[in-house]
Amino acid sequence: MNAPTSTRNLQKAPDTVTTGPIAGSHKTYASVPGRADIRVPLREIVLSDPKEPPVRVYDPSGPYTESNTGIDLAAGLPQVREAWIARRGFEPIAGRALKPEDNGNIGADRLVPQCPAARTLRAGKPGQLVTQLEFARAGIVTEEMIYVAHRENLAREAAREDARARLADGDSFGAAIPEHVTPQFVMSEIARGRAIIPANINHTEIEPMIIGRNFLVKVNANIGNSAVTSGAAEEVEKMVWAIRWGADTVMDLSTGRNIHNIRSWILRNAPVPIGTVPIYQALEKVDGDPVKLDWEVFKDTLIEQAEQGVDYFTIHAGVRLGYVPLTASRVTGIVSRGGSIMARWCLAHHKESFLYERFDEICEIARRYDVSFSLGDGLRPGSIADANDRAQFAELETLGELTRIAWDKGCQVMIEGPGHVPMHKIKENMEKQLRECGEAPFYTLGPLTTDIAPGYDHITSGIGAAMIGWYGTAMLCYVTPKEHLGLPNRDDVKTGVITYRIAAHAADLAKGHPAAKIRDDALSRARFDFRWEDQFNLSLDPDTARAFHDETLPKDVHKVAHFCSMCGPKFCSMKISQDLRKDAEALAGMEAKSQEFLEQGGKLYVPAAE
Amino acid sequence: MNAPTSTRNLQKAPDTVTTGPIAGSHKTYASVPGRADIRVPLREIVLSDPKEPPVRVYDPSGPYTESNTGIDLAAGLPQVREAWIARRGFEPIAGRALKPEDNGNIGADRLVPQCPAARTLRAGKPGQLVTQLEFARAGIVTEEMIYVAHRENLAREAAREDARARLADGDSFGAAIPEHVTPQFVMSEIARGRAIIPANINHTEIEPMIIGRNFLVKVNANIGNSAVTSGAAEEVEKMVWAIRWGADTVMDLSTGRNIHNIRSWILRNAPVPIGTVPIYQALEKVDGDPVKLDWEVFKDTLIEQAEQGVDYFTIHAGVRLGYVPLTASRVTGIVSRGGSIMARWCLAHHKESFLYERFDEICEIARRYDVSFSLGDGLRPGSIADANDRAQFAELETLGELTRIAWDKGCQVMIEGPGHVPMHKIKENMEKQLRECGEAPFYTLGPLTTDIAPGYDHITSGIGAAMIGWYGTAMLCYVTPKEHLGLPNRDDVKTGVITYRIAAHAADLAKGHPAAKIRDDALSRARFDFRWEDQFNLSLDPDTARAFHDETLPKDVHKVAHFCSMCGPKFCSMKISQDLRKDAEALAGMEAKSQEFLEQGGKLYVPAAE
Repeated sequence: MNAPTSTRNLQKAPDTVTTGPIAGSHKTYASVPGRADIRVPLREIVLSDPKEPPVRVYDPSGPYTESNTGIDLAAGLPQVREAWIARRGFEPIAGRALKPEDNGNIGADRLVPQCPAARTLRAGKPGQLVTQLEFARAGIVTEEMIYVAHRENLAREAAREDARARLADGDSFGAAIPEHVTPQFVMSEIARGRAIIPANINHTEIEPMIIGRNFLVKVNANIGNSAVTSGAAEEVEKMVWAIRWGADTVMDLSTGRNIHNIRSWILRNAPVPIGTVPIYQALEKVDGDPVKLDWEVFKDTLIEQAEQGVDYFTIHAGVRLGYVPLTASRVTGIVSRGGSIMARWCLAHHKESFLYERFDEICEIARRYDVSFSLGDGLRPGSIADANDRAQFAELETLGELTRIAWDKGCQVMIEGPGHVPMHKIKENMEKQLRECGEAPFYTLGPLTTDIAPGYDHITSGIGAAMIGWYGTAMLCYVTPKEHLGLPNRDDVKTGVITYRIAAHAADLAKGHPAAKIRDDALSRARFDFRWEDQFNLSLDPDTARAFHDETLPKDVHKVAHFCSMCGPKFCSMKISQDLRKDAEALAGMEAKSQEFLEQGGKLYVPAAE
Repeated sequence: MNAPTSTRNLQKAPDTVTTGPIAGSHKTYASVPGRADIRVPLREIVLSDPKEPPVRVYDPSGPYTESNTGIDLAAGLPQVREAWIARRGFEPIAGRALKPEDNGNIGADRLVPQCPAARTLRAGKPGQLVTQLEFARAGIVTEEMIYVAHRENLAREAAREDARARLADGDSFGAAIPEHVTPQFVMSEIARGRAIIPANINHTEIEPMIIGRNFLVKVNANIGNSAVTSGAAEEVEKMVWAIRWGADTVMDLSTGRNIHNIRSWILRNAPVPIGTVPIYQALEKVDGDPVKLDWEVFKDTLIEQAEQGVDYFTIHAGVRLGYVPLTASRVTGIVSRGGSIMARWCLAHHKESFLYERFDEICEIARRYDVSFSLGDGLRPGSIADANDRAQFAELETLGELTRIAWDKGCQVMIEGPGHVPMHKIKENMEKQLRECGEAPFYTLGPLTTDIAPGYDHITSGIGAAMIGWYGTAMLCYVTPKEHLGLPNRDDVKTGVITYRIAAHAADLAKGHPAAKIRDDALSRARFDFRWEDQFNLSLDPDTARAFHDETLPKDVHKVAHFCSMCGPKFCSMKISQDLRKDAEALAGMEAKSQEFLEQGGKLYVPAAE
């Protein structure tokens, strides 16, 4: 996947993607009692010890990981939401006609065909309830809200609780994570803007998910071709591949030719919300010259993408004319693509950003389809030196203003955050975001905690992501090992997603999410019991765990061995520790003695030499 | 390097190791003014822009990375400290005779020969100043103290300061990092036990380094064969390889045959302090049965290793009989090898640990050679479930007692820490350690912030390591991707070391180390200026950064291209941002306007719809 895609490949429509269960697990669907039409996907890991209950984990991978998956990319995925949406009284619309510039005016010989899947196209009208925010404010629990409540609970109410899972502790910095998520709780969190369900009414294929501080921390993966490389087949497979390993949403950052048609394949086959940055495509339509951008081409692009079913738009409306000079003395200037495009436009015309000036109109368009906003941090710091500077925070304050406008217009909003930030400046970002943006969900890129490790920026940023996730960030945008250096290939995408699943899970544990620890405890019991296969299967990446073990101890007999290659049989602490435990009776008697010891004489050691 | 070593390999003495400079840099030595005998190694990265000063970075890699290195493993490294030690009046000793059990009673046909390098063997006497702690308390600044002071400053006083490096900020949680490290400051930190220079008087080859909260955060890498795999050649090369990428100390955790002779090759060729866990070898001498251990065999092993030049000993003297039952209800019991061995001994004999009871005698042995202690956390948690439990903290309290005994005996001490700890429980570890152990340096393994990612535990632990490093941990023991699964190979060692250099550097930045940011800023300027080669050369791993870039844009012309494959030329934010900056005059005028804008009207946006 590393080599640049040839022109030939660009003409091919996608045909195959990766399917089948993740090793050691199977897909299951948990129905909501009384609502057979709401079936929440979970991945179930059955363990080899009959005393161990199966472990159910959150599963964003869609139908691709079913055992007998009948994936037909041209037909698109099953329309999970079609019946729900159909009942909401939206009028079918004809929709905007496809224009040659939507695909970069590409010649017919190089045009990727559109995905032929037929769908009913819809738009909301004024006065009608359209967005999840509008429903929530009206006190109406939507199917999406029921769905995500059930999903966040990992269907725990429907099954026997793991009695051994200890009560979770944690420090959630003011978040209010409930022991059990109800649809009413989801509704109230959405109504107050503290969570969003990104779900365009024209993206009927998604399995709804929620982004908010009081829910599981989510992960976004970016895909996208660029002018330099990548084609349609790769992009659809990258999406399938990213969600297979745990991406909760996917942003399509494509630029270049065939952008509209490639997006149609992605959307019709995406069980997760898809985000875009519409200014990228708008720029393509004006031949790549930021100065030529205007409201009309941008507006037309918003409608084009909203009708296709894009679930959230990154809008860099916080890059105001007056802020651009604040970046002049920065070490790395403006590092956001969208931010630099708008800065260029503002300076060239010496006018306030049309995204800022027309934000209310942008909201009116987004509302008709329930496209959520991801308010872009166009002035985010691109280096440790620029972290938390005036340019960054001035923009964040404006994002707070825009949040209130969007809410007034009935739109769901999240806020993008940095970037490059040293550890001691991370918390300030979270606190200021909560304060300025009324607790709208924060969605950060990392942050990278040092600049000196290109090639390892999934790690420099995984550190910052775990921390800011703990502090309250609702979704973490992944960074791959190729950040700053090149386009991620298949392995890089997987490494980025797994790294960010680690960060998100570490954050869930630290926040005290009531179900997060079940998986850690199950894996640790498997480790202590030398159930190697269970240990592999419970891990985020069973294939790699198994392969690493097999490098030194390939034989099947070692899969039940009571030691591993690290210490060998004589030096295995767990084996010695197990031997100790066998004398349970003696230990039970001693535990009381031990307490006594601690209370009475544990600290009374007198050095013999004194 | 993945395949188990055959018996044939075990017989080979090491002959070649990796040598030569790290790409894009050269080794340099900075002399201390007036002390030509004290030359501190640095790695200098010369940049392509003549306006950019060369960047000097800390360099633990030893003579192996010189340009014309005349490495002769049989002769050992140059004896940096020989003249200093020779002046201190130690009497040469004959030393303990080698015994067959020192190499596991291996037959002559499979015996690895000892390293033939000839050295003067020494031991201190009662009343004589031997350890760095004793010298410091006597108000004497040793050559080692001068050396590390110069080294910690990155020789900044001897060269032009980088005028563009902004003043460092940071939050050091009560640490007191000086703007400039003086030998007197080093002396005072050692005198109060807050830092150590691990440097056995019989390890004359080391380039001294310091471990303490008010110095740069250090990284340890573990090497070691096991009963299952690895031989001598591999272990020496692993040490050279680990320090090449930035390990500051190396622990030799070998078990099995040839252990004494392999160690002789490592020590004579190690420019960094070498640590061991003597109980491992002692256990080999009693046929692997913990119950057969006794004081005599342990004492004999301490003397054997101290005479060889081991710089620090991990001693699990905090695993007291009374604490063992506290581990009975743990999810993962005792996961420290040394801890489980001593727990087994205590329970089997139903006696207090001989390490605890004889700790004053252990100190007397260690003092004679200035072997530092790394007081082992034998009861560290092996899972999220067991973090910060009573067993762990009871042991930590005992380590505090033992610290005071060691200090009374004139010995240098650091304290080992966990393990597996969720983020919200990390800080408590640091605070309790500082309190219980009188600010003796903390040396932690990770901690791992979740249990669910075997295969990626360098990352789960890199998160925790960065955080605890920020909070005050002085040295971070690396974790490789193979943790819990198998023995690390060459690539795993490199990945582990680089990950931990990231964590240590992120911690230095967050603590506000005055020189840490210089490298970040230099790399970020190179990034903004599209000086690709400088960006690669300034990174922790230039080879990987360059290879990743070349995967998508292999041509040499792209090394000066003003874009990269991620966004392509049209969408490059840095290019647009640079174009913006060219109009510097306009920006300068606008910067004032911008401030005005912010002060007056920046927040007065009135939504059009209201």
